Amino acid sequence: MAVQRLSPLSYGYGLGGIIARGIDAGAAAPYQNPMSEDERFMSLALLEAMEAVGRSSPNPSVGAVIVKDGVVIAKASTQAFGLLHAETMALSLAPADQLKGATCYVTLEPCGGRAKQGPCAEALIAAGIARVVVAATDPNEKAAGLGLQKLKDAGVQITLDCLSAEARAWHFPFLAYQTKKSPIIIGKWAQTLDGHLADDQDNSQWISGPRSRAYTHWLRQKYDAIMVGVHTVLHDHPRLTARDSPLPHARHPCKIVLDPSGRLETANQDALEALLDEANPKSGPIVYWCTESKVSRYPANLLPYKDQIVHKPTIDFLNWSAFFQSLSDDYQQRMGRYLQSIMVEGGSQLLTLLMRSNQLDAAHIFVRAGFLGGSRNRIAHLHQGQNPSLNMMQRHDYRLIASQQIDDDVVLECVQKRLDLWPEVKA
Amino acid sequence: MAVQRLSPLSYGYGLGGIIARGIDAGAAAPYQNPMSEDERFMSLALLEAMEAVGRSSPNPSVGAVIVKDGVVIAKASTQAFGLLHAETMALSLAPADQLKGATCYVTLEPCGGRAKQGPCAEALIAAGIARVVVAATDPNEKAAGLGLQKLKDAGVQITLDCLSAEARAWHFPFLAYQTKKSPIIIGKWAQTLDGHLADDQDNSQWISGPRSRAYTHWLRQKYDAIMVGVHTVLHDHPRLTARDSPLPHARHPCKIVLDPSGRLETANQDALEALLDEANPKSGPIVYWCTESKVSRYPANLLPYKDQIVHKPTIDFLNWSAFFQSLSDDYQQRMGRYLQSIMVEGGSQLLTLLMRSNQLDAAHIFVRAGFLGGSRNRIAHLHQGQNPSLNMMQRHDYRLIASQQIDDDVVLECVQKRLDLWPEVKA
Repeated sequence: MAVQRLSPLSYGYGLGGIIARGIDAGAAAPYQNPMSEDERFMSLALLEAMEAVGRSSPNPSVGAVIVKDGVVIAKASTQAFGLLHAETMALSLAPADQLKGATCYVTLEPCGGRAKQGPCAEALIAAGIARVVVAATDPNEKAAGLGLQKLKDAGVQITLDCLSAEARAWHFPFLAYQTKKSPIIIGKWAQTLDGHLADDQDNSQWISGPRSRAYTHWLRQKYDAIMVGVHTVLHDHPRLTARDSPLPHARHPCKIVLDPSGRLETANQDALEALLDEANPKSGPIVYWCTESKVSRYPANLLPYKDQIVHKPTIDFLNWSAFFQSLSDDYQQRMGRYLQSIMVEGGSQLLTLLMRSNQLDAAHIFVRAGFLGGSRNRIAHLHQGQNPSLNMMQRHDYRLIASQQIDDDVVLECVQKRLDLWPEVKA
Repeated sequence: MAVQRLSPLSYGYGLGGIIARGIDAGAAAPYQNPMSEDERFMSLALLEAMEAVGRSSPNPSVGAVIVKDGVVIAKASTQAFGLLHAETMALSLAPADQLKGATCYVTLEPCGGRAKQGPCAEALIAAGIARVVVAATDPNEKAAGLGLQKLKDAGVQITLDCLSAEARAWHFPFLAYQTKKSPIIIGKWAQTLDGHLADDQDNSQWISGPRSRAYTHWLRQKYDAIMVGVHTVLHDHPRLTARDSPLPHARHPCKIVLDPSGRLETANQDALEALLDEANPKSGPIVYWCTESKVSRYPANLLPYKDQIVHKPTIDFLNWSAFFQSLSDDYQQRMGRYLQSIMVEGGSQLLTLLMRSNQLDAAHIFVRAGFLGGSRNRIAHLHQGQNPSLNMMQRHDYRLIASQQIDDDVVLECVQKRLDLWPEVKA
């Protein structure tokens, strides 16, 4: 007998995929009790999917495993945009004479329409695959069901919903973007039990441990951009790169600095060096959100490259959605890269503003089992004296999808219920 | 390859034992990856140990499983004080002709000295057990190693430290009491991410969900007493029984009400009915911590039974240790029951006082991924205006031993590092 699940996802899975893998490249897929043979092979496909982190954007990072007579004969993940999908890549790697009658496990339903390298469903049929096991289905109206119908028509056996909640978590930014059709905003912060992100002297680095940082850097690869408030740049000197995450290191994220009043003008040398990170050739492009008049006063070395975008906003804190959409459009046009997801890493004021404006679609919250005290840098509290009982839990309606202890920290992963990616979880 | 452990304990284990079992009587032992055959049988022994919850005090709740040729032939747990220990009980249940050459898995090292029913080590030898696998060793100077030496001398093969961190968590109150030699104080509270245990109107019931409550009630069986401040009695009307925990229901805990200024005088009917819980014949005895002069003004029905103790303290908030020790001595003398462990369930002021006085040996902290706001009922904060940066995390030095998601909550289980029960965990 097994107790009814205590978490929507199986232990060890979250928005970062198989969380241990996001911390250590050598981590295995978690073994569950009970877990079927299909689920074991699908967990390998998820592990494989994670190899495409930061590489496949704007395509989802899909994993595929091909099994013949209980033995894995090939595994692969989505290649860079325009190149092979996971299924076709796996087909190309398998011994051709073993494909007839084999089973293909894939984390997202195979495409059936146009793909730059031909639809995967047709390739699977042509190779003689007898059975396809799918974790998550695709909510994209144009894509949904097309590939599955082709497979069915060709007599391929189909099994759906194998580790589907776990695959939806991994594919969350892609799936949620299909629904929301504008960039997905993910909060990330580390806090003590009394809700502090830093002490009153703005010291925060020590709140979460080194392996929580490795997982954070893994997430920086997964999402397209990292956004911080200017206060964080001035005080924490973040580099906003994925340097401490396990391999692969396909790319560093775009850096967005929110600086409506041009305070970067006062940045010291350490803050500038960290943000520019010139020693790192792969360091992501920088976007400044600042009015034009203020940018002209920025230190000269802040704007050396043509690929840096200065956004010229009408500063309107009541219209974040429009800002994120226009930022995403500008970025795509000028950089040829996509901004489907933005992780906001602080500070507490920016995160609280976004939360109160109902703009956070999801959050990674690292909780340290200790206390910090103080009167500043506290999540969900904007200014002293302005804190009525909020019941933000009910107003904002997050669902706790997964949690995972990482040494002395616990990361809680929450998603807005309105995105409805886990309808099987009771409200 | 497996990632280096992210938590000191394997997933699913904590201070309450196999946490899912504390929530649902039908829960199986968690299956880990990788887990050896020894570990699988020991996890069954731990599951068995949990059957003695609330029954064996002041003996530890030990579990034993006897295995012959890879098959479990008997399992048992510690019986009531003075009756059989787990090992001898299991021996009595096994088919006698199968014991020769069998392996016995036991969660705590078998006793070798005097036990009311004879030392277990001798019984294991007499039965022909060939191998004994032990999870935790006994820190009690009188008991440690005696049984193991006897087994060794008789040629029984011994394997130590199988699931030992997990067994030490389950046996935590017993093991810590051997070291501390006075009652172990465990904090328990449910809070939002901004550190609130209730809103400004003292509403708190909704913070954690029904399955977190089941686990809390399980813990109420495990610990000898529950302590609350009078404010909690007056506002929350707690019954302080283990009614919502899974079976077995061996006993309800003793209830300790901390009421230095005699505020129970003002209790309304609902508060009194809940505390006395007269419809429940098993409801635990009540201890009031109140000065004699104030008790005389208590409502008449608060003191109807001879087994209720009115403690007459010199109210000294600087000497909690002496209070707990004298309470434990009085209780043992008058009730013939032991107070080796006391779980403090609130409110925020009492918990914060204990925490600041360095009196909490451990804590079960239920965190809800939401925000409440307000200016009162916040953990670690005593009074507005008196909250300098504390760095209580460093001052009090807790270790996060385990965490577990329970629906929309996550329970964090922390233990004082000075108790040194998990020395293998890096500091």
